[in-house]
Amino acid sequence: MTPPLSKRARLMPASPIRKLMPLADEARGRGIHIYHLNIGQPDLETPEPMRARLHALRDKVFAYTPSGGTPEYVSTVQAYYQGLGIPLGLEDIIATTGGSEALLFAFMACANEGDEAIVVEPFYTNYSAFATMAGVTLVPLTSRAEDGFHLPPRAAWDKAITDRTRLVLLCNPSNPTGTVYTPEELRMVAAFCRDHGLFLVADEVYREFVYDGREALSALTLPECEDFVAVVDSQSKRYSACGIRLGCLISRNRDLTESVMKMAQGRLSAPGLAQVVALGARELGPEYTEGITTEYQHRRDVLFEGLSKIPGVFLRKPEGAFYFVARLPVDDAEQFARFLLTDFDLHGATVMVAPAEGFYATPGLGRNEVRIAYVLKSADLEAAVAILAAALPAYCAARGIAPPPPSGEAVRQPDFSVPAES
Amino acid sequence: MTPPLSKRARLMPASPIRKLMPLADEARGRGIHIYHLNIGQPDLETPEPMRARLHALRDKVFAYTPSGGTPEYVSTVQAYYQGLGIPLGLEDIIATTGGSEALLFAFMACANEGDEAIVVEPFYTNYSAFATMAGVTLVPLTSRAEDGFHLPPRAAWDKAITDRTRLVLLCNPSNPTGTVYTPEELRMVAAFCRDHGLFLVADEVYREFVYDGREALSALTLPECEDFVAVVDSQSKRYSACGIRLGCLISRNRDLTESVMKMAQGRLSAPGLAQVVALGARELGPEYTEGITTEYQHRRDVLFEGLSKIPGVFLRKPEGAFYFVARLPVDDAEQFARFLLTDFDLHGATVMVAPAEGFYATPGLGRNEVRIAYVLKSADLEAAVAILAAALPAYCAARGIAPPPPSGEAVRQPDFSVPAES
Repeated sequence: MTPPLSKRARLMPASPIRKLMPLADEARGRGIHIYHLNIGQPDLETPEPMRARLHALRDKVFAYTPSGGTPEYVSTVQAYYQGLGIPLGLEDIIATTGGSEALLFAFMACANEGDEAIVVEPFYTNYSAFATMAGVTLVPLTSRAEDGFHLPPRAAWDKAITDRTRLVLLCNPSNPTGTVYTPEELRMVAAFCRDHGLFLVADEVYREFVYDGREALSALTLPECEDFVAVVDSQSKRYSACGIRLGCLISRNRDLTESVMKMAQGRLSAPGLAQVVALGARELGPEYTEGITTEYQHRRDVLFEGLSKIPGVFLRKPEGAFYFVARLPVDDAEQFARFLLTDFDLHGATVMVAPAEGFYATPGLGRNEVRIAYVLKSADLEAAVAILAAALPAYCAARGIAPPPPSGEAVRQPDFSVPAES
Repeated sequence: MTPPLSKRARLMPASPIRKLMPLADEARGRGIHIYHLNIGQPDLETPEPMRARLHALRDKVFAYTPSGGTPEYVSTVQAYYQGLGIPLGLEDIIATTGGSEALLFAFMACANEGDEAIVVEPFYTNYSAFATMAGVTLVPLTSRAEDGFHLPPRAAWDKAITDRTRLVLLCNPSNPTGTVYTPEELRMVAAFCRDHGLFLVADEVYREFVYDGREALSALTLPECEDFVAVVDSQSKRYSACGIRLGCLISRNRDLTESVMKMAQGRLSAPGLAQVVALGARELGPEYTEGITTEYQHRRDVLFEGLSKIPGVFLRKPEGAFYFVARLPVDDAEQFARFLLTDFDLHGATVMVAPAEGFYATPGLGRNEVRIAYVLKSADLEAAVAILAAALPAYCAARGIAPPPPSGEAVRQPDFSVPAES
């Protein structure tokens, strides 16, 4: 008799970002070049001072490192936050295997199986994976493209509360929407958490990726929130080092960090070589961050300008991170994403996008939206825009759908997304 | 109002191996040298061909790697198992962040919160951490020092079954006891699992560490067990590379590996640099394994001979891994371990041992036992033996306990541990 899998194993969501991969492999097999707008793997180099740490490494034994992180890594994180004007104790910082493990630890520590976490949708799809592993139900609050995916009003939050609500999980700047929440929005969420006795888990791994002079306020700067704020951070995006798997969980709530430290001790160490690499970040000056921000802002502009001109495509100007969610003039964005891989190419090239439905918990939402990542060079992004501009009418024709009106009516509306400092 | 932590956060066990660390730090601060017999961090070098992979690495972007492992790492694991005469498909192998993550994934996939896992005690203490995170209750079956910690008879296993039992977790060779289970014992456990529809999760990370001509039979070789066996493996001990955090979960049960792959996709990748390092293992011949086995067998002999001569110390000759559990002539081994760090030294040096109580789930068991790891050079082990031989009578005198009889009565009993091939 074959034993049955657990309920959570059967409920584990398939990654909506990865499920089209076999079709992409087939397209490549036919010689088609694919512009990957579907994943957040930056093409920028991991900074040389970080890579050089590996070549300089003379350790003969790759030994266990302290469960909470090497003293050198933890103080590198501390110095980084000091540079942001955020003083932290070393004991506030626990090294994790990517931001991913910090998210899992946060769910595990803040909620019981059967409890609920409020999350603004569309949200980073892997939140569902960690929530399923922890047995936590994600309760979505819907943000809308028309509002630039800014937060719904406080009344909507209060309505979402049940006696099982234990935490709010907020990604700022947001993957997948590129929205940077304003100080007022963050204060509203903090007050909501305080009023209801909830943890605020803030995923701030895209902190540096903010445009047009914006600033992403860290939840660690919110006044009188020491006892309920936990921040998820990562080296992955900031240093284009996704593969090393290194991040941290930060909180000034000592009960929380002590419990998380026991989870960290259970798995012994975060990756040691990654912690060696991370020390190289100390050699990077402010010009490093300015450089990547400028580059990504330029890429955003290229994509936003290009996509805005495609009839029927709707998006507000993204404010941060390196993603946005765009509405397409199609019935089913997943069908369109498949069409791009199976039935379309422009001069031997096509585009891969992530259907946005998997970023929503509310059934049916996001069906005509895609998440787009701009982690490619501008020339590649321009080529991708040209492909999408040609593919959309071709898809509509193939599916017998009325083509979108020739001028992008929707995008000619005034941009009323919330300004940076309001 | 400060939000409450989850039940599992409050239940997270403190690591019994690490909780004496502050006392060790204080001892070091007083200038005392400490021989660490408490942790399984080998002092052997990570093999040069593995370290050299880092120096040869020319990647400019440390990018995400495939969630199930890089093709190169997975096929390196496949080739390693082929060398053991165990054919595996690439899809049977999922790269994990150390054996630790493989254990967590196995608990998550095989059992629901509130379910039970049968485990032979004393057991690797971090099993409790993963079980707590997964909400799984560990149901211990006690193995005894007098039996060389071999398995209790089938009747004891059948008695442990409840309607919540979902899996058996077996560590072979065993950390902490150093016991290598016989083929008959493994077949008994497999039949038990088959009869009751349970998963058999076999932690085989010490596979190579077997002495006196023994062989550790992999659960993957058990006939007709494809549908319920999952093996936890790791690069840590085999290649003295604990800090890189790389292992794998292996199963031929496709439903299981597909669910675990979704968990793996949730956390994106196993550590990428570790997977680069692991490829160097392809350059190691059989002489590498023979060399480390010979070295550890010699260390075992040094410690076994030395400890056996200390009056009142009882242990059977360990068969594998690089740990054993020894009974000491003391009332409370944790008090003795503290005494070693706070009140004793021999010529400026002392020893750190792990009290064994934390390796048992049954309250009260292991109170007069310690787990000892032999991951130090033989000369250091001899020095550690001399310290323990002097410390035991000193401890008894300090605590007003009757000293053990001058000759080690217990260890002069015939060695009736199960022979290698029976």
